[in-house]
Amino acid sequence: MALAVADLVARAREGDPRSVGRLISLVEGASPQLREAMAALAPYAGGATTVGLTGSPGVGKSTTTSMLIAAFRAQGRRVGVLAIDPSSPFSGGALLGDRIRMQEHATDPGVYIRSMGTRGHLGGLSWATPQAARVLDAAGCDVVIIETVGVGQAEVDIAALADTTVVLLAPGMGDGIQAAKAGILEIADVFAVNKADRDGADLTVRDLRNMLALAGPRPPDAWIPPILTTVASANQGTDELVAALDAHRAWLVESGTLTRRRLARASAEIETIAVTALREQIADLRDGTMLADLSAAVLAGETDPYAAADRLIAAIGAEDLG
Amino acid sequence: MALAVADLVARAREGDPRSVGRLISLVEGASPQLREAMAALAPYAGGATTVGLTGSPGVGKSTTTSMLIAAFRAQGRRVGVLAIDPSSPFSGGALLGDRIRMQEHATDPGVYIRSMGTRGHLGGLSWATPQAARVLDAAGCDVVIIETVGVGQAEVDIAALADTTVVLLAPGMGDGIQAAKAGILEIADVFAVNKADRDGADLTVRDLRNMLALAGPRPPDAWIPPILTTVASANQGTDELVAALDAHRAWLVESGTLTRRRLARASAEIETIAVTALREQIADLRDGTMLADLSAAVLAGETDPYAAADRLIAAIGAEDLG
Repeated sequence: MALAVADLVARAREGDPRSVGRLISLVEGASPQLREAMAALAPYAGGATTVGLTGSPGVGKSTTTSMLIAAFRAQGRRVGVLAIDPSSPFSGGALLGDRIRMQEHATDPGVYIRSMGTRGHLGGLSWATPQAARVLDAAGCDVVIIETVGVGQAEVDIAALADTTVVLLAPGMGDGIQAAKAGILEIADVFAVNKADRDGADLTVRDLRNMLALAGPRPPDAWIPPILTTVASANQGTDELVAALDAHRAWLVESGTLTRRRLARASAEIETIAVTALREQIADLRDGTMLADLSAAVLAGETDPYAAADRLIAAIGAEDLG
Repeated sequence: MALAVADLVARAREGDPRSVGRLISLVEGASPQLREAMAALAPYAGGATTVGLTGSPGVGKSTTTSMLIAAFRAQGRRVGVLAIDPSSPFSGGALLGDRIRMQEHATDPGVYIRSMGTRGHLGGLSWATPQAARVLDAAGCDVVIIETVGVGQAEVDIAALADTTVVLLAPGMGDGIQAAKAGILEIADVFAVNKADRDGADLTVRDLRNMLALAGPRPPDAWIPPILTTVASANQGTDELVAALDAHRAWLVESGTLTRRRLARASAEIETIAVTALREQIADLRDGTMLADLSAAVLAGETDPYAAADRLIAAIGAEDLG
């Protein structure tokens, strides 16, 4: 049964979690109403701060997210959470696996938590993630937390999606630091060494400091990622983490970085949508036979891939005019 | 000094290694002559068997490649090697690092070895790799070996490029098997456990057998990846490996898989070239301002990314006729 998109958007903006959920399902499913929903949401988006939270398995991402939700709620801020599970094909309102730790907030009408699977997506986050974040933003969330395990492309993607990226580590996870060397230094706006009551927390902090120092001097106005220690399960370090997020947000605004990052993000999103549509047009040319015929011609040595690509592009241009 | 592309192609086909090298530099550099070169090469490509060779660092890829080169040369086959280093920005005729092990073949006119860096490329192999392989193919190589370290996207890419993919493992590399679980089972046409004179080789072979068994029954006509043992540094197991490659090649031809794989490969290559060109067109629209203006409009809530993408696509269509 199709509910009018305008109704869904209106209800979502009033804080109805079912309507928020249906809008996210709509963008995830790339349904025909997707465009209508995005157009209806556009005027209302942009108010939320987007926080990315990433780290290796076992560092306490869900517990930290839960701790942050409580802190934001205590400030009266509405919170949306997208818990991304790159290994799962499942999406939906259901809380999966670890996410049970966030369930204490499940009945709070000021909190919306959504699990999203991304399996099948080529590396990293689903293309639906930025759109689901936009739904939460337009629905009136003050903070949108995007939480995902820090493996490979996903952690780079999350940094591209978030205004502020928190990289979570835990003591005694040599792998974490190794992974960190690979790319975390570039994406982290805030480091949090969680489980800081365990042996080795000091060492992890020192390792991070050394890595940051090795990365060389930063320009005078640059943001220097703070290294915090937390014990999320005991709610220790929460105030400091929230303060660091607020400080980074203030720096983003003052330095003009927020606008620059969001412009870059919008640009990437528009381009991805356009390229996806163009790929579909290519696949559909001449009822889906054109690319196959050109491939056969390349195999037969009758043409080369560049000349074949030129013909595809020309055909798209021609079909645009119908 | 621009040498006529037709001359380069003619000389490359006569076996002149400098001309082969210049053609590869030309495709790597995406020079203006690239299209001319591809068109000139097209009628001559398709004769070579492409062998992908991948595995974790330290399993002996270069030594195995060198052993294979010697075996193919003994059969009178001409061999081209693309040694891909995903961590290096450098490309060229020079032999880098490990590749010194292949240097015994450097003066053999029937062998062409090329190192290619891919740093900066988003995950995996450079887009230039299939075109460099086509140059070697058209230049008369009977076998083109594409060798790369098996990390992340690169090993998936190599399987998409090669007719036959060899996954190399070594005893006592638990990581290798872990990585294997993640995706090697799907890409390997032949497994070779190298350094088989070391402790634990039997265990590695057994692990692989178990993993293959767990993957479930295969259709009756399917290729079952053989698990070989080699000691590349002592030239042990060479004949068996070459025989396995030949057997897989025969299966590819008889089953029709070779044509299917090559059609899929040509299709992906054409599409990639077309999409890259379309991305460039998008970036250039209205002297490069259109995407930026649309991004600003999305940020201001005046439009949404889908409507913005529609306008980009319409503009491309219009400029095509310009």
